[in-house]
Amino acid sequence: MRIALGVSYNGQAYSGWQSQLSGNTVQDHLEAALGRFATHEISTICAGRTDAGVHGIMQVVHFNTELQRAPFSWVRGTNTFLPPGIAVQWAQPVPDEFHSRGSAVARRYAYVLLQSPVRPSVDAGRVGWVFHALDGDAMRRAASYLLGEHDFTSFRASACQAKSPVKTMHRIDISRRGPEGAAIEDERNRPHHFTPCYWRFEFEANAFLHHMIRNLMGCLITVGQGIQSPEWMQEVLTARSRDAAAPTFSPDGLYFLGPVYDEKWGLPARTAAYDWLP
Amino acid sequence: MRIALGVSYNGQAYSGWQSQLSGNTVQDHLEAALGRFATHEISTICAGRTDAGVHGIMQVVHFNTELQRAPFSWVRGTNTFLPPGIAVQWAQPVPDEFHSRGSAVARRYAYVLLQSPVRPSVDAGRVGWVFHALDGDAMRRAASYLLGEHDFTSFRASACQAKSPVKTMHRIDISRRGPEGAAIEDERNRPHHFTPCYWRFEFEANAFLHHMIRNLMGCLITVGQGIQSPEWMQEVLTARSRDAAAPTFSPDGLYFLGPVYDEKWGLPARTAAYDWLP
Repeated sequence: MRIALGVSYNGQAYSGWQSQLSGNTVQDHLEAALGRFATHEISTICAGRTDAGVHGIMQVVHFNTELQRAPFSWVRGTNTFLPPGIAVQWAQPVPDEFHSRGSAVARRYAYVLLQSPVRPSVDAGRVGWVFHALDGDAMRRAASYLLGEHDFTSFRASACQAKSPVKTMHRIDISRRGPEGAAIEDERNRPHHFTPCYWRFEFEANAFLHHMIRNLMGCLITVGQGIQSPEWMQEVLTARSRDAAAPTFSPDGLYFLGPVYDEKWGLPARTAAYDWLP
Repeated sequence: MRIALGVSYNGQAYSGWQSQLSGNTVQDHLEAALGRFATHEISTICAGRTDAGVHGIMQVVHFNTELQRAPFSWVRGTNTFLPPGIAVQWAQPVPDEFHSRGSAVARRYAYVLLQSPVRPSVDAGRVGWVFHALDGDAMRRAASYLLGEHDFTSFRASACQAKSPVKTMHRIDISRRGPEGAAIEDERNRPHHFTPCYWRFEFEANAFLHHMIRNLMGCLITVGQGIQSPEWMQEVLTARSRDAAAPTFSPDGLYFLGPVYDEKWGLPARTAAYDWLP
């Protein structure tokens, strides 16, 4: 039988998703824990591999097993053998035709960015950082050029294994999180005392190329800081060259919110856990 | 001259605030960094010591120095020598009469609790955890008995060095963070698939005893789970005995939001950074 799992993890301690000889990837820890619970070797396939330092809110994997157990036994049993930064959230039997990657009709990611004169501390490793104030409207205008079907070669890592650089961006939401109406600068203090805030970027596309969101973030921030105009995003896109885009931004604030599946598979709706993100 | 600093830290990697021979406390790292920047030894006094694993959103310290530097030089210079989990947020000269602990008229703490059938993962070490659904109204009724001036002996650690167990609780806010109107149980799934949510508890008192909030949390959760009635909190309070209360709850979800000072000191208003907490 085939089982699907929802898995959450903090990417800070692990060398990304995909199995490596080092054994310190999320897949390595998950497969080792599943193997101990099932007492047979288990290989998993995931909906979307994540880089080192990238977090997973609801990664979905599937695997085949002969073991018959109640769904929550898989959750509880596997979590017993997982390190603190990784936990299975749900388990559910699925038809053999279900494939965590192939059945996904879309993927969602969030990027959380701290805007502050001072680097992250309480949330070091879990948020990206900019120390200049960003212009939200400029970033939203730049993002609008990315919606729809495009060749995203300019935002693709050289190591990317995707068959095609053409993807369809369904949605990019950019919102500022902070006290209502807070000024960027505290008038009593110098500009460096400006009130910190968070920006949350949410992306949904049918699929993403390797490093695509981190490359998009580098460009959106370049526009948000006024270094380039919103229209520059269009130029970068049509250049179809990695050299046209800004450098790859930090993985620290990147969260894989999870894949989107057709309702026919009956998988649990994505949990609300990620709503704690700023 | 005397300087006050606002300091944020993630308590996960450190053995609490107060200096120890191990050298791995927040105070140790801060004083080492200040000493390297100032090139003379600096001793700090803080507004409120925190236990191992407890986080600081806006700890305030003061120290004396002969070094004349622009305030933000203290911030930037000290942060250069601090580990990733600790960062000075602001620096400001203060009169010699200012004392980070003595001048504080109140302290604020937040406790963030994950309610989920599955233990924390993405936010392991940064939230407390309960796997049963909590009754917010029952906890609020229980909390109401704690408001005002009371002898908090029942919630005091045996190692507590406070002169008096009598403190004044100004405010306890309890709020549930999750999707609007979400049911505790997902009707399509079994009860263990209930939608995770977060609870945020905010406490303000003139001062707190050692372990007081973690002990209060243990009792509030006992009431929230229906193991005790809200009125039991009154019994625990009047018993003036640690044996009457629930066990000390985990430090993981505890955040020192910071001290409150009279406006006459002109210190920067607490930053909005802590608003990212669920």
